[in-house]
Amino acid sequence: MTAQDDRDVRPSVTTGPVKGSTKVHVDVPDPAREGRVLRVPQRRVGLSDGTHIDLYDTSGPYTDPSETIDPHAGLPRLRDEWIQDRAPVNGAVTQAAYARAGVITPEMRFAAAREGVEPEFVRSEVALGRAVIPANRRHPESEPMVIGKNFLVKINANIGNSAVTSSVAEEVEKMVWATRWGADTIMDLSTGRRIHETREWILRNSPVPLGTVPIYQALERVGGDPAALSWEVYRDTVIEQAEQGVDYMTVHAGVLLRYVPLTARRVTGIVSRGGSIMAAWCLAHHRESFLYTHFEELCEILRAYDVTFSLGDGLRPGSVADANDEAQFAELRTLGELTHVARAHDVQVMIEGPGHVPMHKIAENVRLEEELCGEAPFYTLGPLATDIAPGYDHITSAIGAAQIAWHGTAMLCYVTPKEHLGLPDRDDVKTGVITYKLAAHSADLAKGHPKAQERDDALSRARFEFRWQDQFHLALDPETAQSFHDETLPAEPAKTA
Amino acid sequence: MTAQDDRDVRPSVTTGPVKGSTKVHVDVPDPAREGRVLRVPQRRVGLSDGTHIDLYDTSGPYTDPSETIDPHAGLPRLRDEWIQDRAPVNGAVTQAAYARAGVITPEMRFAAAREGVEPEFVRSEVALGRAVIPANRRHPESEPMVIGKNFLVKINANIGNSAVTSSVAEEVEKMVWATRWGADTIMDLSTGRRIHETREWILRNSPVPLGTVPIYQALERVGGDPAALSWEVYRDTVIEQAEQGVDYMTVHAGVLLRYVPLTARRVTGIVSRGGSIMAAWCLAHHRESFLYTHFEELCEILRAYDVTFSLGDGLRPGSVADANDEAQFAELRTLGELTHVARAHDVQVMIEGPGHVPMHKIAENVRLEEELCGEAPFYTLGPLATDIAPGYDHITSAIGAAQIAWHGTAMLCYVTPKEHLGLPDRDDVKTGVITYKLAAHSADLAKGHPKAQERDDALSRARFEFRWQDQFHLALDPETAQSFHDETLPAEPAKTA
Repeated sequence: MTAQDDRDVRPSVTTGPVKGSTKVHVDVPDPAREGRVLRVPQRRVGLSDGTHIDLYDTSGPYTDPSETIDPHAGLPRLRDEWIQDRAPVNGAVTQAAYARAGVITPEMRFAAAREGVEPEFVRSEVALGRAVIPANRRHPESEPMVIGKNFLVKINANIGNSAVTSSVAEEVEKMVWATRWGADTIMDLSTGRRIHETREWILRNSPVPLGTVPIYQALERVGGDPAALSWEVYRDTVIEQAEQGVDYMTVHAGVLLRYVPLTARRVTGIVSRGGSIMAAWCLAHHRESFLYTHFEELCEILRAYDVTFSLGDGLRPGSVADANDEAQFAELRTLGELTHVARAHDVQVMIEGPGHVPMHKIAENVRLEEELCGEAPFYTLGPLATDIAPGYDHITSAIGAAQIAWHGTAMLCYVTPKEHLGLPDRDDVKTGVITYKLAAHSADLAKGHPKAQERDDALSRARFEFRWQDQFHLALDPETAQSFHDETLPAEPAKTA
Repeated sequence: MTAQDDRDVRPSVTTGPVKGSTKVHVDVPDPAREGRVLRVPQRRVGLSDGTHIDLYDTSGPYTDPSETIDPHAGLPRLRDEWIQDRAPVNGAVTQAAYARAGVITPEMRFAAAREGVEPEFVRSEVALGRAVIPANRRHPESEPMVIGKNFLVKINANIGNSAVTSSVAEEVEKMVWATRWGADTIMDLSTGRRIHETREWILRNSPVPLGTVPIYQALERVGGDPAALSWEVYRDTVIEQAEQGVDYMTVHAGVLLRYVPLTARRVTGIVSRGGSIMAAWCLAHHRESFLYTHFEELCEILRAYDVTFSLGDGLRPGSVADANDEAQFAELRTLGELTHVARAHDVQVMIEGPGHVPMHKIAENVRLEEELCGEAPFYTLGPLATDIAPGYDHITSAIGAAQIAWHGTAMLCYVTPKEHLGLPDRDDVKTGVITYKLAAHSADLAKGHPKAQERDDALSRARFEFRWQDQFHLALDPETAQSFHDETLPAEPAKTA
């Protein structure tokens, strides 16, 4: 029996179109597969003057009323044929290998259509390592997307909890809910029991790439004692997750033994969970971690599935006081070395970044990351521009996120209002996603992305002309916009006038 | 009978200390008045290790349990003696005139103590016009503060509504509530009936400077027809408000006739209410506005009370598409000319700024304002970094606000979640204030203000050491931080461990 045969799990997921929008598909011919087209989803907002605007759509089949949704069956396996059709290049089946061999894959073509760019541009950016397409061969349900500084800024939503039985269904719904509002990828950070089953449910039903931090599950396997971890336990965990279809994995391979003492005089030491685990292991064994010493073997595993590395910043600052310090940048230099190792194996790489950084130290993070890591896509958590607003850290971090994305960060990991305080519920997930969508979009505008300003202008025109419904429908969150309006201003006639 | 004798108005204001804090006063000797001291308020956060941190405090006597609060009596007239004690300088009673004459006023000394700087530095910045102390002689209840790029970034909260009787009390409470959470000034934008009485109640009970837009009341006086406005009606309104004690006034004197056509091809035309009124007047009469042609007379009135000009940007962009266009910058050049006229009259001046500006166009706004307006304190509304998130415009604007403040904006006008959608309620006011406090503080950190990082470090240490109560008490919003924590994590022992 597979996880999805378990009838005790009854996910109730949100379906139906976003208010004011309809799902449309653009048929993109695929020259490599004669007569076949790629069906690229978009969200169409119809306006009261008869025109429409098509938006990038991350929500998968859930917002398409013509689709039958059954979480027990999972999503259609969109990429199955593409994957079966192609032979390895130099023994590799990764998007990076194909890109370097000059091959435009259907994934590249699909992602290009979503971005409104030429497929060749996507191929070229992936070949350079300046962009990644996280797309495990074992996650054929995902709709391909590209992450890189020359594309639209992406956002990730973290879900997962210390699983009790009922929560499997809740986590599936959180994934659907987050992608409904615009999450480009999901990370499953579950740590409790049923961790494998929860992930299986999420993967089979996720239209976006899924990321994990395998060390969390490995730690569960050894009873929670970091010192008891080993390469073998970790390797088996990675293979298990790769087999399931995880698209990218956070690996804290840059936490070297000699860097740990650099954190001793910090205000907030080591705050990354993965970083703490690896530092504890290094100190307990007084050697370099198995993530570092077995890195090439890890590359071979990831290469076989086309899992993308997300090289984790285990020594990221946990307070503005610790930003840009020697511990952080020493680790970044090591991540740079490992990036080049992974690329030599044709494995795709992203680099994770902070955390907590005051505004005047943000640009330096991007500059150094690009220099040391060969412009591998930067994937940052915020950063929070101040530490003094727990309860509002979606906002303190959106301030940093918008700026770091403008400077070149390719994907932003969201922060919810519960950051530092508790576990996000469904409302917090939505608030986090919308907040990060607006930060990412602000960066797209500042970077002059050709399609970005079209939506702002359409909404602003609607606002200026008191076309209230158009304004709501073009908003990132039509429901909240309308409800705030209805609270204080009365009648429907006023809104449709 | 004065407004406050009206026993039908029963303001119920929030009193008592902010959770985890106590009110303390620092006694600062005033050399000009032998044996007398200035009692400068601070908010003291006691920590569990026996230490404490003293914070800038805008909340007035309301958070001091030893004070008796009676809105019908109003606040103590703190500055009465200071004002009576001093003779005019060159016929002027403004802080600018005293500063240029080398006199350090008690207001300067008081503001310096709040900022943790030398009084002479405040005097020198005010003398240069790089800072202002909005302090009408007729508002002696206010606790003096200084606005300028070399001081802590300040925030303003707008209140006021289309007054019905019961709302007088509500607006008084909104003022008390906003200053409780950190609003440095309040603007009363009331437009309906009882506009004079509402303002009187607010002024007599406000511990912070109050700003207004007199053209709103002038328009009420002429029945709402902009073309019916005249210099005489406007002048009488300004005198009435100055007599009441309004500390600064928004004056849209830079909307010149020839600038109006520059807005014709904009996405969102003219969105400032004051700007629209003045543009309509100019077009109706086909001449320059009375605000521009009578500007020197206006300076004489403001000079007599020490009302500070807040030169309004009537042609500010209402969408990112219109940012930094010729209409906006043409008006800014005129505001620069008027700044120098006002300074020649020893009147203090701030300059209002946008609005809606994408991130890459923010720095240019500050650079030009400083160049054209002789570094007069810049006072900006946000700006919103994107237009696509109605319902979340406190956040889109905090992204812009933090950046523009880092570049040099001295005061930020808050934006609430209801912006563009409806009137803010009490919860929205708090959300707007907290959001702007964190944006302003982020800028203070980035500017390297010596006192700013102390609070971040204390909170981060508390967080790292799991001193939950200390973390809550140091937060901008202790109540929300604690409630978010309690929602998902159980017991008190865990928090006090």
